[in-house]
Amino acid sequence: MSELHLLSPKGFAASGVYCGIKSRPVPDLGLLICDGPASAAAVFTTNKVVSPAVTIGKRHIAGGYLRGVVVNSGNANACTGKQGLTDAIRMCELAAAQIGAKTAQFLPSSTGIIGHLLPMEKLENGIPAAAAKLGDSAEHAALFADSILTTDLCRKVAGAQFKIRSRTVHLAGVCKGSGMIGPRLALPTSGGRHATMLAYLTTDAKINPAILRKALFAAADDSFNAVTVDDHSSTNDTACLLASGLGGGKVDSPGAVRSFAAALKEVCQSLAWQIAADGEGATKVVKIHVSKAVSIPAAKAMARAIAVSPLVKCAMHGNDPNWGRIVSAAGLAGVPFDADKCVLTLAGTVVFRAGRPALFDAEAVSAALKAREVSVELNCRVGSGSATIWTCDLSKEYVTINADYHT
Amino acid sequence: MSELHLLSPKGFAASGVYCGIKSRPVPDLGLLICDGPASAAAVFTTNKVVSPAVTIGKRHIAGGYLRGVVVNSGNANACTGKQGLTDAIRMCELAAAQIGAKTAQFLPSSTGIIGHLLPMEKLENGIPAAAAKLGDSAEHAALFADSILTTDLCRKVAGAQFKIRSRTVHLAGVCKGSGMIGPRLALPTSGGRHATMLAYLTTDAKINPAILRKALFAAADDSFNAVTVDDHSSTNDTACLLASGLGGGKVDSPGAVRSFAAALKEVCQSLAWQIAADGEGATKVVKIHVSKAVSIPAAKAMARAIAVSPLVKCAMHGNDPNWGRIVSAAGLAGVPFDADKCVLTLAGTVVFRAGRPALFDAEAVSAALKAREVSVELNCRVGSGSATIWTCDLSKEYVTINADYHT
Repeated sequence: MSELHLLSPKGFAASGVYCGIKSRPVPDLGLLICDGPASAAAVFTTNKVVSPAVTIGKRHIAGGYLRGVVVNSGNANACTGKQGLTDAIRMCELAAAQIGAKTAQFLPSSTGIIGHLLPMEKLENGIPAAAAKLGDSAEHAALFADSILTTDLCRKVAGAQFKIRSRTVHLAGVCKGSGMIGPRLALPTSGGRHATMLAYLTTDAKINPAILRKALFAAADDSFNAVTVDDHSSTNDTACLLASGLGGGKVDSPGAVRSFAAALKEVCQSLAWQIAADGEGATKVVKIHVSKAVSIPAAKAMARAIAVSPLVKCAMHGNDPNWGRIVSAAGLAGVPFDADKCVLTLAGTVVFRAGRPALFDAEAVSAALKAREVSVELNCRVGSGSATIWTCDLSKEYVTINADYHT
Repeated sequence: MSELHLLSPKGFAASGVYCGIKSRPVPDLGLLICDGPASAAAVFTTNKVVSPAVTIGKRHIAGGYLRGVVVNSGNANACTGKQGLTDAIRMCELAAAQIGAKTAQFLPSSTGIIGHLLPMEKLENGIPAAAAKLGDSAEHAALFADSILTTDLCRKVAGAQFKIRSRTVHLAGVCKGSGMIGPRLALPTSGGRHATMLAYLTTDAKINPAILRKALFAAADDSFNAVTVDDHSSTNDTACLLASGLGGGKVDSPGAVRSFAAALKEVCQSLAWQIAADGEGATKVVKIHVSKAVSIPAAKAMARAIAVSPLVKCAMHGNDPNWGRIVSAAGLAGVPFDADKCVLTLAGTVVFRAGRPALFDAEAVSAALKAREVSVELNCRVGSGSATIWTCDLSKEYVTINADYHT
């Protein structure tokens, strides 16, 4: 799936330019456009403090159709009051004008420093400049993907394809996120700074907004909502999916919906994994899978408690098979858990079973923990609830990045 | 109150000896004894994984009276199955035999490494040796205080006194805790490793167990339950208060109960502060006070969300007045919060007001953040709920301690 990119689905164009918001001359403004009105869905942060971009995004997505998204990095447009709202609307207006669309057909996003007004003079020039560079090549996709990054060390891209009645449906996405990562995304109906989680997804499937919305929320819940770096939900977290309907594949049967949902989940999980891998200071991905808990919420609560424990994250950094920290983290989640029944498997080796330590080769497990991805599997053996969360280790580099970064 | 120590209240004796559990020859076994049956209350961890010491402690405290506590450090006796239960009972039996008391009149505690059976041959010799060294001097109190420490860098002691009808009531306590600190203590009716929170408190007041229990839970909730280092509740967290009744002051009127409760809260809060100050890798205490929230639970949730955010803790370490991290942490707590109404004061300076950044001298605030204790005050201006939580900053030293410590 590596050869697919954000513009592989038919009907999209994108660009990424430097308009002067970031201090370094790297792309800080991106445009993603659909050739016609796209079925659209988005999920947003559930933080009570939201960027005006989120407020406007929720408003513009309400009708279920968009022409595109306009994103800047380097400034989160958060805690910016009424002027922030005006500026978020103006971003949409500028983008829409470039392609003869309506302001309300654009979703705006911002990521970067909190508490500063957007430098609108730079966006007034930058958005037309970005529009002038729109295109549908892999290079255009890469520039857009780069334009949304902040503290990220690498570009994050994923794609998938499947067939509906002999027509190939393409799905792709890009995202950013490295710190302030602990998204709890929800649909606008239910529901900063700095290094927000942003994701933009495209597909050429023909699919109505109601189905799209349901599929996006389900996929986000099993991917972006299941990745944590510092577990700090941002003011700006957003994932937005546009469906051009120009590829010929119609998602109009239960089977097609299932195929679409599966492909979307695959793309979102790949992106979430890339966020964990590029977490601030990370040297490895830690995949935590809790199974056979009393319920799915219980499994999620235990997986998250393990994932956010600084003691567990430091042990993973030190390649230390310190199962006591993991078992006790599961126990503090506030949900039913019986250590006397569980089995804990670390990097493929059973280290704790039924309330007692298992005999294992600590040096061999420690060596296995040096991998790029390590697994923590807690089988509770009491029910049928399971959940997976991806996180990363906690290193001194994390402290360097976040203690020495000054506002 | 610095001159008071654990044995200042009348009717107690204590000792601390090295029995060979720790690798270094420092005290690892402590006895605290009351001359007669003491009114007693205890609160325990709400982690679902508990040490057999906690299981037995809950059982022995049920009647409301104890003769003493027996504590070892260096081994948590957690995840040790049925043998662990047998060993916890045996610790009590050994201690009780030394003073002609019953096994059920002792509360056992353990702290240290998880998943290893207690070296009972060392305790078989050590407990009689500790009993032979019992005494009521300041030195005896200090040895007991030292015997419960693990990764702590310093002894933690507090005391208070007040009068009831011209009789002086003494109250004192010791505690330990540096890592795996995020206690949620509860009374046994309601409700591993390594560096658990343990606290032992003495008073010579005459007070019945029911009042004592209520006072202890209230004091613990505003102190031990309000301190977090890594927010990882341990398998062994315990706070136990013994009242000898030998000082002459009777806590039998509403006024006396209030005085007692106030003194107890003062002692517990001093101990909690000392835990934050000695948190693993800490260079400063961060006191977070949320006021005028919609409710006390909402205030607590916001204060804890701010206290546990690695981004906030790193900013505090870097003396960075990064208010965006604090405001967004309050917003992610899942409780009502309106950033457009709040005022955030950092180290005495208003940095954010009513949804917008305040103009402030960032260098001056940064300089103020270099203090040994810094304050974060979030006034929500919507209700009457308030809460305080103490935490510490997150340093590279924390990662060193917890990534390089091997099981």
